[in-house]
Amino acid sequence: MLTVHAYAATAATEPLTPTTVERRDVGPHDVLIEIKYCGICHSDISHARSEWGEQVYPIVPGHEIAGIVTEVGSEVARFAVGDRVGVGCMVESCRECESCLKGEEQYCLKGNTLTYGGVDKDGTITQGGYSTHVVVTEDFVVRIPEGIDLDEAAPLLCAGITTYSPLRRWGAGPGKKVAVIGLGGLGHMAVRLAHAMGAEVTVLSQSLKKMDDGLRLGADHYHATGDPATFEQLAGTFDLIVNTVSAKLDLDAYLGLLAVNGTLVNVGAPAEPLSLNVFSLILRGRSYAGSLIGGIRETQEMLDFCAEHGIGSEVEVIPAEKINEAYERVLASDVRYRFVIDTSTLA
Amino acid sequence: MLTVHAYAATAATEPLTPTTVERRDVGPHDVLIEIKYCGICHSDISHARSEWGEQVYPIVPGHEIAGIVTEVGSEVARFAVGDRVGVGCMVESCRECESCLKGEEQYCLKGNTLTYGGVDKDGTITQGGYSTHVVVTEDFVVRIPEGIDLDEAAPLLCAGITTYSPLRRWGAGPGKKVAVIGLGGLGHMAVRLAHAMGAEVTVLSQSLKKMDDGLRLGADHYHATGDPATFEQLAGTFDLIVNTVSAKLDLDAYLGLLAVNGTLVNVGAPAEPLSLNVFSLILRGRSYAGSLIGGIRETQEMLDFCAEHGIGSEVEVIPAEKINEAYERVLASDVRYRFVIDTSTLA
Repeated sequence: MLTVHAYAATAATEPLTPTTVERRDVGPHDVLIEIKYCGICHSDISHARSEWGEQVYPIVPGHEIAGIVTEVGSEVARFAVGDRVGVGCMVESCRECESCLKGEEQYCLKGNTLTYGGVDKDGTITQGGYSTHVVVTEDFVVRIPEGIDLDEAAPLLCAGITTYSPLRRWGAGPGKKVAVIGLGGLGHMAVRLAHAMGAEVTVLSQSLKKMDDGLRLGADHYHATGDPATFEQLAGTFDLIVNTVSAKLDLDAYLGLLAVNGTLVNVGAPAEPLSLNVFSLILRGRSYAGSLIGGIRETQEMLDFCAEHGIGSEVEVIPAEKINEAYERVLASDVRYRFVIDTSTLA
Repeated sequence: MLTVHAYAATAATEPLTPTTVERRDVGPHDVLIEIKYCGICHSDISHARSEWGEQVYPIVPGHEIAGIVTEVGSEVARFAVGDRVGVGCMVESCRECESCLKGEEQYCLKGNTLTYGGVDKDGTITQGGYSTHVVVTEDFVVRIPEGIDLDEAAPLLCAGITTYSPLRRWGAGPGKKVAVIGLGGLGHMAVRLAHAMGAEVTVLSQSLKKMDDGLRLGADHYHATGDPATFEQLAGTFDLIVNTVSAKLDLDAYLGLLAVNGTLVNVGAPAEPLSLNVFSLILRGRSYAGSLIGGIRETQEMLDFCAEHGIGSEVEVIPAEKINEAYERVLASDVRYRFVIDTSTLA
């Protein structure tokens, strides 16, 4: 067992504070990773505060992990000490169900093991990446190619794959018009990725406040959804809309922006149900879909794609002591575009 | 001009009564069709009663038309006198927009001309198939292959293509599990078509009342949605669910029946909006879609498919004088499975 530094929430209503957690001994198929950076995902906050169901405390959040391999188990074939690696939202799955066999471990039918707050195979509760080290089975570790700095790579493990997967599934590419709702942690990745895939990219944001950023990140167009004219002007335009916003929105209005046979896909969701007029779908053969992160194989594919296209996340690197302040700023949408914890400050 | 017998609603609250309508002279690209049979679609009732927007009266419903060509225009190349033909929900479209160029005239961006209650190119209001004759441009006429009786063919022009199109688009076929919600005019066609495509077909009906029929029509399984156990037993099962029911239903419950990456597609819709929990989509990568009839090319493809597989609609042929009674029986779901008017009784 290895005792390592970490930051944890001790209760749903408490700020995160320094602590230590135990990491298991490196098993034959395990990799010990010295975490260099860990991104702060909006869902870290939801979990730390038990907003999506009661958690076991203390809980160490963090599933956007980038680091260096410092030890490998006797049977590990794919990684060696010194390798640059990442870990995302999952650290294990059943490996036997239809989804796992297809490489879609995020949809594991028996339930995968989340990187934190999940129940591991040995019955312990997993603890995440706001920590100096983590031990993970090699099958849930991906390689971070040279050419992406580790701090800019960390958010790719969740924000990157979460947007990459639906863009690929619904064919973002040359000749396709793709809109991205929201220019936050997920949205800015969606813009970069869709642009790199060759699509014509439009940002749909509440205001034009971040327009310069949006265009710099690769958007071809930028429209304010606070302006009702946007919905008239862009009616029937997009082949694909990726909605990165968790807030409740007027679904029918956004579906109206889809071209014939177009798809609106949510990668975030509000807790309350939405209202939907089915004619919004029928009269133009449209679809409304959901997408959850991506599988391990696709995560590797995404990282390789990012390296090839020189894509990382835009990050603001912070020391551990600023985690709680960062949480408040995430909730206030005051980050461009992802906080990343420098884990060397955890000790 | 040709004056022909027809049945029309004279107001939203009035029963249909005998009348005559004018058909235009046969133009160079037109076909004059002697209508033999016309199906009664649920939407005929909604239109006749102005439930989907105010109609111009008198209105002659009917868009499931099967008949014989009795005259062709000078430029008509594809049809000859004596041909067995059909006309569905549309009789014209812009022919220039992206949708029309793709053969998806049902999604014509400039608005197509519906077979009845639509505004034709000459500014007149179209009148439908509860009539002895109709004049239609040849490009919106399809061929009814030998081997399908005209009475059993008529409903294919709407109920057939409406279910065929989504089954094709979402890949119904061998190895796929397809569910059909509702065993009515649309549902019984969906079952026959999905079965002929090689899918494993399940009917989801309120009760087991029509189970014998469902199995005879080609379903492999039949479940009552009135029984809550159905939703537990079938959770995560289907690659595709075709919802033929217009009633408001618990969307999240039905989405829960979809397998990973599965699609629920509505071909009918309630007037009121539905409630949807987005997590029902996200956690399994599911989609909720809509589909509207099909294009002319696909309608011909469907008819050829039906002929090849010996598929027609199950019909109850009625004389014109029973149209109003049939409307009430349709509303009471008391028809197996489509009323078809014998138009020789109109005169």
